[in-house]
Amino acid sequence: MTLPQRVELYEVGPREGFQSEAGSIRTEDKIAFINAMSQTGLKNIEVTSFVSPKWVPQMADAEIVLKSIERVPGVAYRAAYLNLKGLERALTNNVTLDGSLVLSASNAFSKRNMNKTTSEMLKELPEWIEAYQKAGIPIKQMGFMASFGCNFEGYIYLEHLLEIMGKVIALAQSSGERIQKVKLADTMGWANPQQIKRTVQAIQDKWPELQIHLHLHDTRGLGLANVYAALEEGLWEFDTAIAGLGGCPFAAVKGAPGNISTEDVAFLCEQMGIATGLNLDALVECSKMAEGIVGRELPGHLAKGGVLSDIRPRSWLQEQG
Amino acid sequence: MTLPQRVELYEVGPREGFQSEAGSIRTEDKIAFINAMSQTGLKNIEVTSFVSPKWVPQMADAEIVLKSIERVPGVAYRAAYLNLKGLERALTNNVTLDGSLVLSASNAFSKRNMNKTTSEMLKELPEWIEAYQKAGIPIKQMGFMASFGCNFEGYIYLEHLLEIMGKVIALAQSSGERIQKVKLADTMGWANPQQIKRTVQAIQDKWPELQIHLHLHDTRGLGLANVYAALEEGLWEFDTAIAGLGGCPFAAVKGAPGNISTEDVAFLCEQMGIATGLNLDALVECSKMAEGIVGRELPGHLAKGGVLSDIRPRSWLQEQG
Repeated sequence: MTLPQRVELYEVGPREGFQSEAGSIRTEDKIAFINAMSQTGLKNIEVTSFVSPKWVPQMADAEIVLKSIERVPGVAYRAAYLNLKGLERALTNNVTLDGSLVLSASNAFSKRNMNKTTSEMLKELPEWIEAYQKAGIPIKQMGFMASFGCNFEGYIYLEHLLEIMGKVIALAQSSGERIQKVKLADTMGWANPQQIKRTVQAIQDKWPELQIHLHLHDTRGLGLANVYAALEEGLWEFDTAIAGLGGCPFAAVKGAPGNISTEDVAFLCEQMGIATGLNLDALVECSKMAEGIVGRELPGHLAKGGVLSDIRPRSWLQEQG
Repeated sequence: MTLPQRVELYEVGPREGFQSEAGSIRTEDKIAFINAMSQTGLKNIEVTSFVSPKWVPQMADAEIVLKSIERVPGVAYRAAYLNLKGLERALTNNVTLDGSLVLSASNAFSKRNMNKTTSEMLKELPEWIEAYQKAGIPIKQMGFMASFGCNFEGYIYLEHLLEIMGKVIALAQSSGERIQKVKLADTMGWANPQQIKRTVQAIQDKWPELQIHLHLHDTRGLGLANVYAALEEGLWEFDTAIAGLGGCPFAAVKGAPGNISTEDVAFLCEQMGIATGLNLDALVECSKMAEGIVGRELPGHLAKGGVLSDIRPRSWLQEQG
C-alpha cells in the first residue's frame, strides 16, 4: 500500500459547523473567520448554505457573507444547497459548483432529512440534471449521505450503496454526462477502517476511474483511523472542519464531536510526509478563533497538544528517506 | 495484513488518569470506580502507583485502595512503581507484577522525569534485576517511555530505540533472564501510524519472538489511527484509559487529551470483528462515572456518540462473513 504524496482538504466548518450551532453566529464573525482560513493554504472552503432561513436561520446571511469575504485567488468558495431553489441562489452568488447529484444511502435518513425516500429522491434527479445543463454546469460528481451507516437504519450494506451508485452513474450517462467523482459521507459516524477499505476496493474494482472523496465524522472516535485507512487505499480528498466544528444533530448526546478536524487530519498527513499545502500554525490559530466564536471548547486536538514544529518534527522522515 | 482475532486492553485510568488530576480524588470514589471496572470484562487494571506521597499526593492512598477493592477472580490488579522502594511496597500489597525493566528512550525526558540520564538509568538496571530475582519474580518485560518522540528532544530515532532495547535484552540475558515483551510508550503523543508500522516491523525483524505492547496517548489526535496501524501489524495488547482519562502534563496546553480511551479502542476493535471480551455499555457507564468523579467532560467519544448496539451494528460483518 502506498500513501498518496499529497492530500486536498475541503474545509466545511463555516457551513456545516456553524449550521449546527444552537446560538446564532454574528455575520462579521463568519466573514473574519473565512478570511482567516483563506490565509492557511486551504484551496476549498464551503462558506455557507442556500437553505430556507425558516429551517436554518443560521444561514440566513448566505448572500451577505459571500459578498463580504475577501476572496483570495486560487481559493474556491463553495456553498451547500439541498433543492433547486438553493441551486438557483448558488448560481447567482459567485460560488464554485460541482454539478453534483446527491442522495442518501439510508432510506430512513432520507425520509428524516429530506422528507422523501431514496427512490423518490432518485426520481427527482432528472430535474437536477436539467437545471445543471441549463446553467451550463457539467455533472461530474455524485454524493451519498449516510454511506456507511445510519442511526435510524443501522449499517448500510455495501451492495446497496453500489447499486444506487450504479443507478446515478447510468442516469447521468443517459443524459450525456460522465460522473468522475463520488463523495461518500459518513454523516452519523458509523464507518470503521476495514469498512472504508472494503468499500473503496469494491468501488475501485467496479469503476476504476471514479475518484472517491470522503466526508467523515468523528462522532464515535474513529474519524482519524478512517482517514488513515483511506490514505492507505490511496484516497487524497477529504472534507474536514477546523477544530472539529460541526457537532452531529443525530448523535446519541448533544455536543458529540462532529466533522473530523482539519488541523488534526493535516497533522496526521504532514507527520507521515504527505503534503497538505497547509500552514499548521495558521490552522491552529483558526481553530482557537472558532472556539472563540462558538464560545466553548471544540474537539480538535492539535490546538491543545501543540504542533511542536520547532522540536525536530521531521527527523524520522529524514531517517526514513 | 491480517488483523488479530482478539485484543487485550490494559486499563490504566485509575493510576495514570487520577494521578494527573489537579484536585484530589476521594479514596471511596476510586474504590467504587475500580469495582465498576472489574465488571466490564477488563482483565488488567492498573489501580494505583507506589510513589512518594510528597511528589504525587493523589496516590497517597495506594495501600488503602488495594486493600478495599473487591477483587474479581480473573482480573489482575496492577500498580506502577518508579524506584526500588516502590517495588518493595508493590511486593507486599498483593498486586500483579511483570518484572519489567523500564527506561526512557528520550534522554531529555529521563532527566526531567527521573532526574537521571538514560545511561544512568541503564546502569541501575542490575539493581532492579537483583531485586526482582530476590523476590522470585521472573524478568520477562521491558518498557520504554517516550519511545516515538519527546516534547524536549523531538523525534526518537528508531536506531536509538533498537540500540537501547538490545542493551536491556543483553543485560537481562547475562543475568539468566529472557525478555519476552516490550512495552513502547508514546508518552507525549508523538507517534504516527507509519512510524508505528516501521517500528513494529523493525523490532519483529530483529527479535521475532518479542511481543510488542503499546501505550499510546491521544495528545495530538492520532491515537486511534495509531491503534489501527498497530492492529494491521498484528499487535493485540494496548494500554488504555476509560474516557481518555489521563491528560498529559507535558502537552502544550493544560487539559490536552491523555491516554487513548478504553471504550473508543474497544469500539474500534468490535466494529471490525476483533473480540475484546468487553461490555461496551458497561464501559460507557464507567466513562460517565469517571466524568462525575473528575467533575468535567473527558475526551472519550463513545459515551457522547453512542454505542447504538441495538441498531443492526453487526450487519456489515455478517455481509463480509
